[in-house]
Amino acid sequence: MKHEIDLNSDMGENFGPWVIGDNVDKEIMPYISSANIAAGFHAGDPNTISQTIESAKYHGVAIGVHPGFRDLVGFGRRHINITPQELTNDIIYQLGALREFAGLHQVPLQHIKPHGALYMHLARDRAAARLFAATLHALSPDLLLYCLHGSALWQEAISLQHPVICEFYGDREYDRSGSIVFVRRVNPLDPEQVAQKVLRACREGKVRTVEGDDIPVAFDSVCIHSDTPGAQALIKSTRERLDDAGINVKPPARIISYPTS
Amino acid sequence: MKHEIDLNSDMGENFGPWVIGDNVDKEIMPYISSANIAAGFHAGDPNTISQTIESAKYHGVAIGVHPGFRDLVGFGRRHINITPQELTNDIIYQLGALREFAGLHQVPLQHIKPHGALYMHLARDRAAARLFAATLHALSPDLLLYCLHGSALWQEAISLQHPVICEFYGDREYDRSGSIVFVRRVNPLDPEQVAQKVLRACREGKVRTVEGDDIPVAFDSVCIHSDTPGAQALIKSTRERLDDAGINVKPPARIISYPTS
Amino acid sequence: MKHEIDLNSDMGENFGPWVIGDNVDKEIMPYISSANIAAGFHAGDPNTISQTIESAKYHGVAIGVHPGFRDLVGFGRRHINITPQELTNDIIYQLGALREFAGLHQVPLQHIKPHGALYMHLARDRAAARLFAATLHALSPDLLLYCLHGSALWQEAISLQHPVICEFYGDREYDRSGSIVFVRRVNPLDPEQVAQKVLRACREGKVRTVEGDDIPVAFDSVCIHSDTPGAQALIKSTRERLDDAGINVKPPARIISYPTS
Amino acid sequence: MKHEIDLNSDMGENFGPWVIGDNVDKEIMPYISSANIAAGFHAGDPNTISQTIESAKYHGVAIGVHPGFRDLVGFGRRHINITPQELTNDIIYQLGALREFAGLHQVPLQHIKPHGALYMHLARDRAAARLFAATLHALSPDLLLYCLHGSALWQEAISLQHPVICEFYGDREYDRSGSIVFVRRVNPLDPEQVAQKVLRACREGKVRTVEGDDIPVAFDSVCIHSDTPGAQALIKSTRERLDDAGINVKPPARIISYPTS
Repeated sequence: MKHEIDLNSDMGENFGPWVIGDNVDKEIMPYISSANIAAGFHAGDPNTISQTIESAKYHGVAIGVHPGFRDLVGFGRRHINITPQELTNDIIYQLGALREFAGLHQVPLQHIKPHGALYMHLARDRAAARLFAATLHALSPDLLLYCLHGSALWQEAISLQHPVICEFYGDREYDRSGSIVFVRRVNPLDPEQVAQKVLRACREGKVRTVEGDDIPVAFDSVCIHSDTPGAQALIKSTRERLDDAGINVKPPARIISYPTS
Repeated sequence: MKHEIDLNSDMGENFGPWVIGDNVDKEIMPYISSANIAAGFHAGDPNTISQTIESAKYHGVAIGVHPGFRDLVGFGRRHINITPQELTNDIIYQLGALREFAGLHQVPLQHIKPHGALYMHLARDRAAARLFAATLHALSPDLLLYCLHGSALWQEAISLQHPVICEFYGDREYDRSGSIVFVRRVNPLDPEQVAQKVLRACREGKVRTVEGDDIPVAFDSVCIHSDTPGAQALIKSTRERLDDAGINVKPPARIISYPTS
Repeated sequence: MKHEIDLNSDMGENFGPWVIGDNVDKEIMPYISSANIAAGFHAGDPNTISQTIESAKYHGVAIGVHPGFRDLVGFGRRHINITPQELTNDIIYQLGALREFAGLHQVPLQHIKPHGALYMHLARDRAAARLFAATLHALSPDLLLYCLHGSALWQEAISLQHPVICEFYGDREYDRSGSIVFVRRVNPLDPEQVAQKVLRACREGKVRTVEGDDIPVAFDSVCIHSDTPGAQALIKSTRERLDDAGINVKPPARIISYPTS
Repeated sequence: MKHEIDLNSDMGENFGPWVIGDNVDKEIMPYISSANIAAGFHAGDPNTISQTIESAKYHGVAIGVHPGFRDLVGFGRRHINITPQELTNDIIYQLGALREFAGLHQVPLQHIKPHGALYMHLARDRAAARLFAATLHALSPDLLLYCLHGSALWQEAISLQHPVICEFYGDREYDRSGSIVFVRRVNPLDPEQVAQKVLRACREGKVRTVEGDDIPVAFDSVCIHSDTPGAQALIKSTRERLDDAGINVKPPARIISYPTS
């Protein structure tokens, strides 16, 4: 039974004059506690970064850098075969760019969460995960690392006692193994169902799988993706149910005693 | 009569697998005291940035960020009509990226020197110079700003008491007004002549103009561009003449009592 | 009094996963006769180009290439200081890319219309206009060139007897000199007013200026920008009024006897 | 025993102000018969494309487009996980751009040869190879396709009776299976040895493997990579030995009766 939980979403993923998804950053920001901000390689640009941090600051939302593969047209969703060193350097570059804007707006940088194909790559590729985790730990030993529980990156971070934040995905389905299942949907997700799923996970530590069983889930943060169709309603509804239930939505920097393991 | 002087050059301007000019960063690094490192918008990439800082550290060379317009194919030499806010955000982004790698290699970031068309833009455009100088001063009040003496950017920095470093260009010609003249050359510059010109500027504070007069020059640093043909010989020769003359080549962070005005 | 007129709009200006403006290409396509298709430098990407041509083909809309400056984040709206040769090569590259997709979908490429800052640059810069017009004429003597009446590009094209199409801007205001005036708007444009303005221009060859006078207008095509807020309603309304008035909306390739002069 | 053979190399792989490898396009061009010209995604830019075609035309060298993954910083050598449709559209785009410049310089486009990681992807990925081959055949049934003998792309092209050109790599080692072996070298390749290897392949249809056996090789063209260290000497020497032996070096468009199978 959690009394406090983090609610995170990806923010600042427009690019230049273009918008992504429902373009609802402004509408979502009041309901989340942590924002993962795109850093220019897969989405985002310096103006968007600056405005997004400003908006997060206004709403008291903690910020993190959301680095991706250098693949703008593919939105960082396509795997690129890259060496651990190149990949780590690409992340450091994005981390620094974001951190500078955090400094400009005088807000601390709370966390780092890799994006899309980079998130999956670091979850699976041991050599990449090791070098990245070691470099991150040397650079910023307190920067919270959002990652997949049990993944290669998670293991490497834990072994360094680097603080990690594990996520529960409110807008994704789980299977018996605890893996995320990609379900082709006809209809958008129902905000009330998503909210109840998150609420149950927080209260009981359980989620119903696609097979119909319950499995335990351990997590420090709830993620609802801002580019899921209808994201705004899902996040608003989830936030309201959590508030109603007396579960405080707070950034993890103000919650946990890390490292978790 | 100077007893100490800074010698700066642009470094890290390769991109991915490509090299620029004579590709002589490694040969030049031992002879300079400050390196202006490209930050990825007009040249450079995360791997190159990291390696260049490592090399600078090894040779005891101070490092600065060398931001440019976002124009890779044009190498930042083409003016882009950009608002002061966009331009300032583009620079902050590059500054942060470079600063993170400086942190990784545990060397301080000494300075910032805009590149090419951006250097000229900030020298002339008052609104851009004002916003950029104010933002820089708020972000990093001690980060040395390399700029053109008397330019808009110089004036704005001085008015904020931000520390500035003015340059003497060893590989450029001056006219009576003190402006740089672009001379179309048949032959490469003579290393001995360049070295003597720099030596005289340091000793007597004078330079011979294209019209044949002497004019006074005030400066804190000597710049020789790494992409000038034969740059390596020019820089080596200049460094050797300065050493012979007992003028210590040192980064400005270890020389000046700033702000100069 | 025109019996036939072309109605053109910019299409295919999304990029990767991002959308621009109201994202109403599909809704606008049925109402226009010519589509200016972004070619990847300021907007558009290979997938978008292909899909946009397919959609144009389905609706019987003639297609043209809409090349821009190589400035994705700035959407080709920022002037870049570029040599005539570089600029011409950038346009040829985009022209060829678009033409190949036209071939793939077995539709002819009807026209070329420069985008944004490139459109204005070619309207003013004589050397750029001359080299581009000459190169275009050598490459594709029949490819209709959409340009500003009386501009440098128009003059150069006319002198080569290259076919030109002059535009009337339904969603812009004119002043007494016949120039476009940028008016800061509080409210979106009224579809009926825009339609009536276009109708009058077609019937009487006149437009009311911001000063309140009538001036004559000569044109071969009506342009309504797809990124003007409410573009869909403006274009639909204009098309309906033209249809009601018995003025056939047709691509210029099926209308004019060119060159006009 | 061949009396005629094609000798191809990659050309136009500089980018903006940067050069790659030994920067010896001009020195190599007189000795080859077919040039694979980079099209802007992994290397090359509109100016470089235009100049490279001009140079090829001057030397009577046939030209082809050399499309790559959209990965400039990685020089197209990193695999990107891309759908067959996206990949095919990326290639069409590059093909069109190159073809337009060929038209400008009034030379025919002879061939297409995918670059680096794209070459390998199309050699292995059946779905990508099938869609690309079908699209290419529909667009340009006579455009020679350079590919790996027996690869997925080769099979798909053959099944469509699309003309293919198979290559012998003069600067690579083969193993018993006929595969290319990447050997880490201490010293650059010896020009005379490379020339003799090519000569033997042309005369006897055999190559000595790394295991020390001879295996048969079937090919229509000899490739020596322009970015192999010492490429200029390797190509010059190979050309001279072929000339001495009375084997005419000619582009395949003037040699073969295709399709080969």
